[in-house]
Amino acid sequence: MRRLSHYLRALEGFDRNGGGTVSSEELASKGHTTAAQVRKDLSHFGSFGKRGLGYGVSELVDRLRAILGVDRAWRVVLVGAGRIGSALFEYPDFKARGYDCVAVLDSDPHKIGAKWGNTTIRDTAELEAVVVREQIDLVVLAVPAVAAQEVTDRAVRAGIKGILNFAPVRLKVPAQVPVEDVNLVMELEALSFRITRGGASE
Amino acid sequence: MRRLSHYLRALEGFDRNGGGTVSSEELASKGHTTAAQVRKDLSHFGSFGKRGLGYGVSELVDRLRAILGVDRAWRVVLVGAGRIGSALFEYPDFKARGYDCVAVLDSDPHKIGAKWGNTTIRDTAELEAVVVREQIDLVVLAVPAVAAQEVTDRAVRAGIKGILNFAPVRLKVPAQVPVEDVNLVMELEALSFRITRGGASE
Repeated sequence: MRRLSHYLRALEGFDRNGGGTVSSEELASKGHTTAAQVRKDLSHFGSFGKRGLGYGVSELVDRLRAILGVDRAWRVVLVGAGRIGSALFEYPDFKARGYDCVAVLDSDPHKIGAKWGNTTIRDTAELEAVVVREQIDLVVLAVPAVAAQEVTDRAVRAGIKGILNFAPVRLKVPAQVPVEDVNLVMELEALSFRITRGGASE
Repeated sequence: MRRLSHYLRALEGFDRNGGGTVSSEELASKGHTTAAQVRKDLSHFGSFGKRGLGYGVSELVDRLRAILGVDRAWRVVLVGAGRIGSALFEYPDFKARGYDCVAVLDSDPHKIGAKWGNTTIRDTAELEAVVVREQIDLVVLAVPAVAAQEVTDRAVRAGIKGILNFAPVRLKVPAQVPVEDVNLVMELEALSFRITRGGASE
């Protein structure tokens, strides 16, 4: 899956530079993998390209966007208006990729009512109402660990489809609600583990 | 590796609550895995625990800290004093885990000279001097994609041991320098991919 994201980035680069066709070798060099792996990855999702002619860049971009679910808009609520929340809210690539942060919630009375651009920070108590009224698809969870499970339970009951979790805790969710965890300390631990063990392989 | 980080978090919880011993079943429930997986993971790193008696919490915490390389201090330079850099700099868990951000660099003349707490933002041009003088181990790279490879090349030549990369680009590094990538858009793409494909499995 991660390789598909890398291929899409590489293809969008080719597309901006004029499009045409691209070989699996060219894609492989951009994705730090092999041409055989590229062909295998793409073959999972149907038949792309013609032997000896390569892949049509525009066609493959469209197919990969559909596969990755970025050919549509996703409506996002950010819960937690702290520093990480603020950095995420301003992250230009989210909007460009179709992730639209339509609401920001926090439980701190000093933050509720403040404005980030055109978005007014609202009370986390309004979560369920916001999810329903704003037709929210995804929750970006940037609250302290102690608050994360309760917010998750409420968001799941309100009908959200997935969670991007920055809280350093394993969330309990029903099987049909995927969670992606981003734990910044664990990323650093992964790095120090690899340095300590003396190998750079992933 | 990620499971080891989860086990360590769970064990530290047990440790704060009085320590003693813990069974592989208890660890498994905290790590959302199975007792057999816990025993297999831990057996890779030597013999822990006694059959039927469980693991000594304090002993296992110490061993996991050593395995993960968090029983020592890591000296970190943050390159890129934007919003993500700022959020990372303030992240309380980094310091608690032994990651000490001793320098912050940016190339924006408006930021150079500003203070974050006791840390003065310095010019990215000083990177090599800072790495040597401050005995930097790790670079946290929070610069725009176009600048990432150049900063990486310079940091590698100056002798850093690993990179935590927030720039949305695949860095080219020598085999002995591990890179951990955190690409926030790719995390959201992973989520929308799983929702679109209708499965929640990782």
